[in-house]
Amino acid sequence: MFQTIAAISTPPGKGGVALIRISGEDAVSVASSVFQPMTGAPLCEREARRAVFGTIRHPITGEIIDTGVATLFRAPASFTGEDVAEITCHGGTAVTRAVLMATFAAGAEMAGPGNFTRRAFVNGKMTLSEAQAIGLLIDADTESRRALASGAARGNVSRALDRIATSLTEVLSALYAAIDYPEEDVGDEGEKQILSTVQTAVGDIDALRRTYKTGQAIAEGIPTVIAGLPNSGKSSLYNALLGREEAIVTDIPGTTRDVLSASADIGGVTLLLSDTAGIREGSDAVEMIGVQRAKDKLAGAALVFFVLDAGTPLTPDCTDLFEEVCALSVPTVVIFNKSDTGCALSAEEIASFTARADYTLSLSAKTGDGMEELRRVIAAIAGTDKLDTQNDAIIWDARQEASLSRACDLLNDALCGLTVGDPLDAVCTLCESALSEIRGVDGRAVDEDIIAGIFARFCVGK
Amino acid sequence: MFQTIAAISTPPGKGGVALIRISGEDAVSVASSVFQPMTGAPLCEREARRAVFGTIRHPITGEIIDTGVATLFRAPASFTGEDVAEITCHGGTAVTRAVLMATFAAGAEMAGPGNFTRRAFVNGKMTLSEAQAIGLLIDADTESRRALASGAARGNVSRALDRIATSLTEVLSALYAAIDYPEEDVGDEGEKQILSTVQTAVGDIDALRRTYKTGQAIAEGIPTVIAGLPNSGKSSLYNALLGREEAIVTDIPGTTRDVLSASADIGGVTLLLSDTAGIREGSDAVEMIGVQRAKDKLAGAALVFFVLDAGTPLTPDCTDLFEEVCALSVPTVVIFNKSDTGCALSAEEIASFTARADYTLSLSAKTGDGMEELRRVIAAIAGTDKLDTQNDAIIWDARQEASLSRACDLLNDALCGLTVGDPLDAVCTLCESALSEIRGVDGRAVDEDIIAGIFARFCVGK
Repeated sequence: MFQTIAAISTPPGKGGVALIRISGEDAVSVASSVFQPMTGAPLCEREARRAVFGTIRHPITGEIIDTGVATLFRAPASFTGEDVAEITCHGGTAVTRAVLMATFAAGAEMAGPGNFTRRAFVNGKMTLSEAQAIGLLIDADTESRRALASGAARGNVSRALDRIATSLTEVLSALYAAIDYPEEDVGDEGEKQILSTVQTAVGDIDALRRTYKTGQAIAEGIPTVIAGLPNSGKSSLYNALLGREEAIVTDIPGTTRDVLSASADIGGVTLLLSDTAGIREGSDAVEMIGVQRAKDKLAGAALVFFVLDAGTPLTPDCTDLFEEVCALSVPTVVIFNKSDTGCALSAEEIASFTARADYTLSLSAKTGDGMEELRRVIAAIAGTDKLDTQNDAIIWDARQEASLSRACDLLNDALCGLTVGDPLDAVCTLCESALSEIRGVDGRAVDEDIIAGIFARFCVGK
Repeated sequence: MFQTIAAISTPPGKGGVALIRISGEDAVSVASSVFQPMTGAPLCEREARRAVFGTIRHPITGEIIDTGVATLFRAPASFTGEDVAEITCHGGTAVTRAVLMATFAAGAEMAGPGNFTRRAFVNGKMTLSEAQAIGLLIDADTESRRALASGAARGNVSRALDRIATSLTEVLSALYAAIDYPEEDVGDEGEKQILSTVQTAVGDIDALRRTYKTGQAIAEGIPTVIAGLPNSGKSSLYNALLGREEAIVTDIPGTTRDVLSASADIGGVTLLLSDTAGIREGSDAVEMIGVQRAKDKLAGAALVFFVLDAGTPLTPDCTDLFEEVCALSVPTVVIFNKSDTGCALSAEEIASFTARADYTLSLSAKTGDGMEELRRVIAAIAGTDKLDTQNDAIIWDARQEASLSRACDLLNDALCGLTVGDPLDAVCTLCESALSEIRGVDGRAVDEDIIAGIFARFCVGK
């Protein structure tokens, strides 16, 4: 049994109401010694899930701290699966601190980050991916992050993993039977069945893995660099994407020197946008530092918007820079900007970009023409146009992806072994390892270290 | 009947849990159309005060936003006295916003600042001084503010006002009787009784008014200026009071130039401390600006710590500056600093300060010797040594004080009238006005404008 813990579960700061959560074997007695109902029996004798109005006191000094409402949740029907008491009081910093201190005086320990959710996981109230989703839900500041996290918190990912685990368990049963009773030959039909189930599992895992790019684009955002020659309109595009006049825009080439960074929610995809200095040779020392920073930033990009001024003829500088960008091997969108001023590029020149970029499009950051098309391109790159954030199983965490990737490799080895006629126990070991990877995504029989790492990233009170 | 309103009642930001409060005639139906219990009957059919686990959906799109707990409170047994529904969800910014938006889609209006508490006041769930105390409780960042606000929120002030109002009502009954039945002479005994009751009421009001200074010192803080000649150790004292090395301290006279300000909680009294440049004639332009700012700051002080270097002989500069400080007519504490270096002042010189200062004391800001005595002096000045913050009726608001002051004046006029034998109906009018002032402190028959002003200072969701 764990210690009884307490924490302020609502955000810090001022508000009408704050909630102090107590969980553990002594939760009810701790709550009962700081909270006296206004009328009737002591709190500890009250039925569960009933909101009781009363006075919050320090259990030793007897000092009245505040009035509030207490609700008991009896194990296992609680968030953590343990006895839980929730006390709401007025939401000031001093009063919530005083109530929390009173619970400590009554014997509760201070909860560490993620402690409540961890107990919920340990007590089987939720899977590890659901717990991680709650972490993301609390951090979520955009609607699509919220939808993704809420779906995963309700088990979208866990159910997909369960389906895969179920197929693999079927495969293993068939393999165990074949190993244990070698005299009963599995037969061609049986082997085909096993092969096909493994193939289905691989397909299901692949499908889940393909959502990773989208999940990441929503949950963590895509590091995106706007690059190009000076005066191609990069800062105008940056401002148009952010929807505000963030970067200074002038007609003077070399206006932007520092790297400007901001996060933009583009139809649910978070772009971690960087506007950079136009890249050129030159003599202005400050500008050259800016150019170097632009190049450094480009090196870490996961998506590049390569901006050209469509109204001026193509120069070797521009094609050279495009070569550098292509060498990065990250998705690149070539943007022919200033479409409102006409197009000075030949069809061949345009084709030379189209041939090597992932997407090309023409727009005017100034008038907004073509921005809608850019939004569609971003959705296509992130894959949000093909997934239902609310209802599909979408993964976003590198640990989840790594486990699925290892499971895939193991199952492909198993498929190979089955095809070339390897001993069944070798195939069986591969499938067992794959199953263990799959179950590990949801924290079943997974390293204690990994679990501790996941919950340490939570806030206190969760 | 008011509109049904909704707001996020917990502080903004990230946390484990957030609470959305809905209040008004349609609170239950609004909550029921966004919240579906996991099992059993719809929310609107559930009994009051029962925590129900379920799913939070957008009422129009049907999209699942989160899972959470809903509790109904039926009128009049709720915070506002109306039907109230409270929904707790995960505490992220996007998820709480989405839940709030869902309540709007279901017909709730956005609550303005203080709307819930205002309804509680209008519906007779609390007095105006209790409502103001809740505002202070939410703002409270020190333990003594919390205790003061919590006491007033539980009716400490309202009960004191009720006692005064009761005495005045008795007086008025006696006066009405004497006016209506002039043939039944009140008699000497009766007049004495009336006089004595009015005197008691004046005494009670005076007692409450005397707590104003203390209440203000706790709730709002005392603007306190540390002044003195250069190099007297003002910044060392400032740091010692704050408990941290905030101001730069050197042996070089004129180290402090800018006015440094910080708030210090000294045994429950909040000092709004300003450390200022040492005041002297000089030539350094920056220092002279600092000296002017020090003088400006002094002009607005409600308490002055006049600091001298006890180890150096007294100069005319010092006595001149002390004259200036005395001319301010605010409480002044003369501090003979650097007591660790001995005392270069004569007994007569010390006496010349003691005669005119409110308090004098010797300390060493460097070693901490004598700081305890300074804390006692601060408590005596604020009056916190004579009051029980937790249990006494203490006022802190200028509006409360002004009403009590007017009531006192009216009653003193009435006493005067009774003594010189003025017509009883004139005395009666004075006592009625006094009663109306007293009742006005708790918002009974008080101007609508005043009430609107008080609740506008609340946060949304309260």
